Amino acid sequence: MAYTLQQLSDFEDIRTLKHRYFRGIDTADMVLLRGLFTADVAVDYRGGNYRVALTGRDNMLEFLANSFHSGAMAMHHGHMPEITLTGPDSAEGIWYLEDIFVSLEAKTHTAGSAIYRDAYRREDGQWKIARTEYDRVMELITPLSADAKVSAHHLAKTGRKPQERTDISHLIQWTA
Amino acid sequence: MAYTLQQLSDFEDIRTLKHRYFRGIDTADMVLLRGLFTADVAVDYRGGNYRVALTGRDNMLEFLANSFHSGAMAMHHGHMPEITLTGPDSAEGIWYLEDIFVSLEAKTHTAGSAIYRDAYRREDGQWKIARTEYDRVMELITPLSADAKVSAHHLAKTGRKPQERTDISHLIQWTA
Amino acid sequence: MAYTLQQLSDFEDIRTLKHRYFRGIDTADMVLLRGLFTADVAVDYRGGNYRVALTGRDNMLEFLANSFHSGAMAMHHGHMPEITLTGPDSAEGIWYLEDIFVSLEAKTHTAGSAIYRDAYRREDGQWKIARTEYDRVMELITPLSADAKVSAHHLAKTGRKPQERTDISHLIQWTA
Repeated sequence: MAYTLQQLSDFEDIRTLKHRYFRGIDTADMVLLRGLFTADVAVDYRGGNYRVALTGRDNMLEFLANSFHSGAMAMHHGHMPEITLTGPDSAEGIWYLEDIFVSLEAKTHTAGSAIYRDAYRREDGQWKIARTEYDRVMELITPLSADAKVSAHHLAKTGRKPQERTDISHLIQWTA
Repeated sequence: MAYTLQQLSDFEDIRTLKHRYFRGIDTADMVLLRGLFTADVAVDYRGGNYRVALTGRDNMLEFLANSFHSGAMAMHHGHMPEITLTGPDSAEGIWYLEDIFVSLEAKTHTAGSAIYRDAYRREDGQWKIARTEYDRVMELITPLSADAKVSAHHLAKTGRKPQERTDISHLIQWTA
Repeated sequence: MAYTLQQLSDFEDIRTLKHRYFRGIDTADMVLLRGLFTADVAVDYRGGNYRVALTGRDNMLEFLANSFHSGAMAMHHGHMPEITLTGPDSAEGIWYLEDIFVSLEAKTHTAGSAIYRDAYRREDGQWKIARTEYDRVMELITPLSADAKVSAHHLAKTGRKPQERTDISHLIQWTA
């Protein structure tokens, strides 16, 4: 059984959609990110010591802008997609995340992995993220070594400065 | 020269096959893993301080279930496939692995990379892994920091508990 | 809108081209690498404490052979391509890099990420890298732990030994 040209094209475009998401969050590219979600996007990220549960694009953008801010260094790499087309304009995807999050303010280094289960919807010809969830596979938190030297830090330039940040405690719960 | 729809579809399905393999081992999803190998699968993983050499799906599953157990945290991410179709139902693939293996029992953290050379065979319409080998590119073993906090650990739930593990010394040789 | 067979094939081949690049540099496979660039390739890698700026395939190969040498362990994984076809024989691509570089000579461990912006050109039916640039997202340099054990090191065998290395100070500038 072969896929159709349309199906193969959808695989390509859905992958690119998610690739942009990861590039967008680590560089705080809010213009890029705004175009990637449906207005009713539903999010449930079940981390090791946090849970992000929210709905709506505006909430998602506010969560992202406040999480990947000027005091953080973040690497979110989504790997190994397993995409399933569920209708002409709907699809599901499994991705396997590796992420590193360095808080220069709390002096911590978090290394983790997680498995995403997403739903995508095509609106006006564009694939968008309609639902996204993940569960952690592993998460390891270590103090940031006093010997560590930060020699590049993109979010220092593009991320929100302390006075620009807003309260997102209704969007993320810290559990430990 | 363009690929055919069938060839492009085969690339997609072979990638997804391998993606499932990596997701399966890190979450000890033995039901998923059982469907991914030919009955005569041949394995040769040449690690830094170990070598896994075995044939047969049952041996492979026994090796995997005992290696990614409740005392381990594992991240295996296979990247950058180079797939070559060698016949209507056969293919080869090169993949570049990044892996992290934390032994909570031995208190070690192993970070490594390796290059896979695989063979795939289509059986009853499903691509399966028929042969898989790798050689290490780098491997670095460090003691697990006493300050490290484990905040998520999937294999603690799904991996084999100590009393469930079996002897696999005939499948893996430790060389250092 | 669906892509054509030719376009989908080009996505496949351009991805494989870049995948070979990363495999080639980490294993010092100079024969593989020589086939991947146009003669007039232009390179601008803006790292945290270095900048690589050069033109020409011979300069690129000389830079690579001297950078990934017998005293280094390197992992360069390029992820999440966003490929755009700009003509029948030209394309552009964005990639998101994760890299680890261990200098066994300087006893340092550098972990970083970067975003590539590439241009590709088809010559005699083969896609090649015509331009490649990156900017760092994060870079963290730590002393290599005295407790770290190197249990696999491919470049020790294939990388240039000290007496084989040449001066590349005209190709890379260290800024810190």
